[in-house]
Amino acid sequence: MPGVRIALDSAGGDKAPKVNLEGALMALKEFPDLEILLVGRQEELSPGLKGYPEASRIRIIDAREVFPMSEKPSLLLRKKETSLYITALQVKEGTADAMVSAGNTGGVLVASLFVIGRIKGVERGAIAVKIPSKNGYTILIDAGANAEVRAEHLRDFGLMGYEYARFLGREPIKVGLLNVGEEEEKGTDLTKTAFNYLKSELGDSFVGNVEGRDINFGEVDVIVSGGFEGNVALKAIEGAGKLISQRLREEIKKSGIAGLIGALLLKKALGRLRDSMNPSQYGGAFILGVSGVVSKAHGNSDSLAIKNAIRVAYEGVKRELVEKLGKRFGG
Amino acid sequence: MPGVRIALDSAGGDKAPKVNLEGALMALKEFPDLEILLVGRQEELSPGLKGYPEASRIRIIDAREVFPMSEKPSLLLRKKETSLYITALQVKEGTADAMVSAGNTGGVLVASLFVIGRIKGVERGAIAVKIPSKNGYTILIDAGANAEVRAEHLRDFGLMGYEYARFLGREPIKVGLLNVGEEEEKGTDLTKTAFNYLKSELGDSFVGNVEGRDINFGEVDVIVSGGFEGNVALKAIEGAGKLISQRLREEIKKSGIAGLIGALLLKKALGRLRDSMNPSQYGGAFILGVSGVVSKAHGNSDSLAIKNAIRVAYEGVKRELVEKLGKRFGG
Repeated sequence: MPGVRIALDSAGGDKAPKVNLEGALMALKEFPDLEILLVGRQEELSPGLKGYPEASRIRIIDAREVFPMSEKPSLLLRKKETSLYITALQVKEGTADAMVSAGNTGGVLVASLFVIGRIKGVERGAIAVKIPSKNGYTILIDAGANAEVRAEHLRDFGLMGYEYARFLGREPIKVGLLNVGEEEEKGTDLTKTAFNYLKSELGDSFVGNVEGRDINFGEVDVIVSGGFEGNVALKAIEGAGKLISQRLREEIKKSGIAGLIGALLLKKALGRLRDSMNPSQYGGAFILGVSGVVSKAHGNSDSLAIKNAIRVAYEGVKRELVEKLGKRFGG
Repeated sequence: MPGVRIALDSAGGDKAPKVNLEGALMALKEFPDLEILLVGRQEELSPGLKGYPEASRIRIIDAREVFPMSEKPSLLLRKKETSLYITALQVKEGTADAMVSAGNTGGVLVASLFVIGRIKGVERGAIAVKIPSKNGYTILIDAGANAEVRAEHLRDFGLMGYEYARFLGREPIKVGLLNVGEEEEKGTDLTKTAFNYLKSELGDSFVGNVEGRDINFGEVDVIVSGGFEGNVALKAIEGAGKLISQRLREEIKKSGIAGLIGALLLKKALGRLRDSMNPSQYGGAFILGVSGVVSKAHGNSDSLAIKNAIRVAYEGVKRELVEKLGKRFGG
C-alpha cells in the first residue's frame, strides 16, 4: 500500500503554528509511510524544520492568510487564501488523502462540506467524538455540527456512528439515542420519529433511548444526538472535569502537610487519571459524512493532541473509513 | 410568624418510606416551628415514629396507593389515592404550605401543575436545580420539565431563575442562555428569539449566551435552557462525576501500598470533595411557576437529601418565594 499523505492546517488552533509543527514531527516519527503537507506561511514554517530528519517528509504549501478562530464560518468560502481553505483544497484535488485542522470548528465544517463535499446519500455532516467512558470510550455523534436537525439526520448520524464504531473494531455494537429518559415514549416528536428510524435501520444494534449520564458511564458504544444537545453535553462534561480537578487541588492544599504527602504518594495515580480523562489522548474528532477524511483537533490542542489528530486521520485513510461509509449509504 | 407545614410524600423515591421518615425527623429537629404531614400508609409509618419526641409535630395522612417511579406521568390525575396526589392536594387545599417528593419526576410535575396549579401569567412550570460550580453553585432552569419549549417559555424561565437567584441572596445576578457558542448569532431560531426576549426583560442582568462548560465552571448565577438539553447536561455531569470517581478508585488500587497510604492521608480532602459535589447537599430542586412551594428530591435520595429537600421547601415558604414570583409575573 502506498504511503499516506495528510494536509495539516498549520495556522489552526490557539497555539499555532508551534504545536502544529511539533505534532507533525511527532507523527512523522511514529508513522514511517506518512507524508505531511504543511499549509501556512512558508517563511514561518521552514526555520522550524531545520535539523529534523523527519522534515524530508514534509512539504510546505504556502498560504498567506489565517482564518480566525472566531470568524463567521460561512465566510471561509470567500477566503480562498487562508490556510484552512487551502488545506481542504488538497483533499478535494487529491493532493492529500486527509486533512487535519485545530482551527475554527464551523470553518472546518464549511471547508469539509463545501470544499471537499459530502458522501453521496448523506445530507448532513456530523462531528463524531470519542469520549472517555466506563468501557474505554463512547462515540458521541453529532457533537456540534448541526444546531438544528430533522429525524432523518439523526438516522444518518446513527448509521455513520455505527460504521465508525465498526471501523474502530467494536463488536457487537450498541447504538443509543440521547434522550431525557429511557422509555420509548420519552422525549419530543423529533426523538420519537428518530427512534423508529434507528430501530428499522439498525435492528438489534439499536438499544433505544439513553440519557446524559450514559455518555461517560453507560453501556453503549455510540450515542446519537442533535448537534445542539451533543455540544452542550460535551462541554458540560468538560466543565465538570475542570471543577473536580480545581476542587481536588484546593482540598489537598487545605489538608496541610498530610495532604501534600498524600498527593505526592498519589501523584502517579492522579496523573494517570488526568491522562485517561484528557481529550488530547483521543486525538481528533472525525467530521463524518464528508467524501474525504477530516480530523478536527480541539482549538487549544497541544503538540500531543495535534499528533493524535494526525494519527486519527492516518488510520482513517489506511482503513478506508470514507469508503466504508460510502458503501453504507449506497455509493 | 406562624409555623411552616410541609406535606411529604412518604412513598416517593427508591428508598421510601425509610429515608423519607428519617429525613422528616432530621428536619423537625433542625426547625422547631416545622410541622410535617406525612402522606402514606398509616400502618407502615406509625411504628417508625415511636420514641422520637419530634414525632409530635408529624401528622400522618393516610394514602393507600403508590405512584410508581416509572409510571406514565399523566396517569397521576386518575390515581387520586396515591400518596403523591394526596400530598399535592394538601397544598391545593391549604392544609400544607409546601410539598416535598422524591417520586416520579413527571408525576410530581403533573401534581404541581394540575393539582396545585400555575402562577397566573406563567405558561410552563420549570425545574430549577442548584449545580455545584466555581462560585458555589449555578442555577439551571429548566432541568427537565419541558422537553419542547418556545422562546416565550425560555423568557419565563429566565425571569423565574432571576427571581430565584434573588431569593437565594445572589446580587448582582448574571443570567446566561445555554447555547453552542457565546456569540450572539450562535444557535437556533429558538435561541436567537429567546436571546432578544431575555435581553429586553432582564437588561444588563442578561449576559448573553453561555456554553455547557459554564454550568460547572462559569461566571453566571443562572443558566436558562430548554428542558431537553438542561436534562441532558445535568445527567452528563452526573455521569462525568461517576466516571472520575470510579477511575480514581481504580488508580489508587493500582498504586499499591503507597497509593493506599496516600489515599488515607487524603481521606478527609477526598471526602470534602465528594461532599461538595454531592447533589444530596443541595437538597430539593424547586418546581417553579407553581402556585405553591414544590421541592423535588432526587429519586435515589438518602435521608440527608430528603432532609435538605424539606429545608429547601421550608425556606421557600418562610421567604415567600411563590409570592415573589407571582409579583414578577404581575399577579
